[in-house]
Amino acid sequence: MRYARCVADGREFYAIVEGDEAVEISDAPWLAHERGRRHPISSVSWLPPVLPPTFYAAGFNYKAHNRHHEELGYDPVKVGDHPEVGYRAQSALAAHGDAIVKPDGVEGRFETEAEVVAVIGTTLKHATRHEAKAAVFGWTIGNDVSARTWQHADRTFYRAKNADTFKPMGPWIETDVDPMASTTTVRRNGVVDAVFATGDMIFDPYDFIVEMTKYITLRPGDVLWMGADGNTPMGVGDVIDIEITGIGTLTNTVAAEGRRTDTLVGIQKGHGR
Amino acid sequence: MRYARCVADGREFYAIVEGDEAVEISDAPWLAHERGRRHPISSVSWLPPVLPPTFYAAGFNYKAHNRHHEELGYDPVKVGDHPEVGYRAQSALAAHGDAIVKPDGVEGRFETEAEVVAVIGTTLKHATRHEAKAAVFGWTIGNDVSARTWQHADRTFYRAKNADTFKPMGPWIETDVDPMASTTTVRRNGVVDAVFATGDMIFDPYDFIVEMTKYITLRPGDVLWMGADGNTPMGVGDVIDIEITGIGTLTNTVAAEGRRTDTLVGIQKGHGR
Repeated sequence: MRYARCVADGREFYAIVEGDEAVEISDAPWLAHERGRRHPISSVSWLPPVLPPTFYAAGFNYKAHNRHHEELGYDPVKVGDHPEVGYRAQSALAAHGDAIVKPDGVEGRFETEAEVVAVIGTTLKHATRHEAKAAVFGWTIGNDVSARTWQHADRTFYRAKNADTFKPMGPWIETDVDPMASTTTVRRNGVVDAVFATGDMIFDPYDFIVEMTKYITLRPGDVLWMGADGNTPMGVGDVIDIEITGIGTLTNTVAAEGRRTDTLVGIQKGHGR
Repeated sequence: MRYARCVADGREFYAIVEGDEAVEISDAPWLAHERGRRHPISSVSWLPPVLPPTFYAAGFNYKAHNRHHEELGYDPVKVGDHPEVGYRAQSALAAHGDAIVKPDGVEGRFETEAEVVAVIGTTLKHATRHEAKAAVFGWTIGNDVSARTWQHADRTFYRAKNADTFKPMGPWIETDVDPMASTTTVRRNGVVDAVFATGDMIFDPYDFIVEMTKYITLRPGDVLWMGADGNTPMGVGDVIDIEITGIGTLTNTVAAEGRRTDTLVGIQKGHGR
């Protein structure tokens, strides 16, 4: 099943995506809900499929990505004996189809990181690996847009990875897929730039959830981005597709800052109150 | 005016605190709202006064704190020419009166950091300093509980600063105070451990907001924790008071892990759906 969040006629709602229709549902996908009005997909805009209470993100979770990091001259990545989760900001989310707005001040490498995203469906603490698996409601796709000059110059990621629109997520949550068997493909303007086995992780999602829930209570709607293998450079005007087999394709176009009206509309929709 | 979030009879609501009563209001304090039922304060429990969509936190923002950090043998803190904001996790929030649960695995320094917190009341991007001031709805108090051994061993703060209950915030949002003129006092079991000028910051809240909003849209309910001057050690059973003049006093008791029932009740209330 595919669950999305959509906006139509200025109203935001969760929906089940069936063929070329979005069927409104009365509450979040992981809560009891009823089906309502049907919308042609051509008449809705996408929102990020969930606004996570807490937005978790794995870093340095693919060996090839870490090798690339070292080849560029940065300090080797110390991978410990347990996964260490980081965070991204809800304020940075954008939807499938939204512009990725490149801020005026960005210089140097401006890159996409293609990530599979676990969406949590239950409240969970001190989880076993079995409980961790059962707690994942479904899977979506994330683009961990990164401005490398800021990433390496700053002490925090506030503008390198969390500027407005730097976290496209979507288009929907797919419940019937095992992404550990999927393939991730990144296309820039229709040309394949990177292909990797989605499941070729150092620590898998359930490793992370077991470790995190030793200390942290996960809640429905929380998301866990799983890290990326490879970086695709992006310039203004580029169309970036991230396809993960069995889930779908997340598409965003890179725009220059300054188109204030478009940008603010893009940002504000989907953030409700 | 003092705005709180409370729970009574299993129901959560925003309230205005007047004398010894909590007056229910119909929506968030920064939205249009009407007054409703009055509750004696003795009959309500506190919740964190807001669940922030994004939870921002300044680090290394008091000179004396940075000197202390260096005296302990850590690398000197590089304070740049602009403020760099970090993040904490909504999942770690606890309320005034809740237990701070010390996880079983914590060794070494386990400390309180007393912080003043700006609560944002409007949507804001590319703010001037004047707009930044106008966008702060009010002020509350935060305790940036830190497990130092994990903080220095791990690449991220997932358990050092974001374990469950590590971010007490409250008791309420005070709108009629200039905290830059306030004094922060930390008491451990009633004995004063630290006193400092709340406003003695390297970058003040408006410096942060101006810099953040060059890249990030702030939204109503977002919080910005302003950093701490000094650390107070905490042990199981200790009662920690953080008083900021003109705002109030945030009080929490440190508990050992293992009291699963109490802990989970404490954590789950206030996180709604």
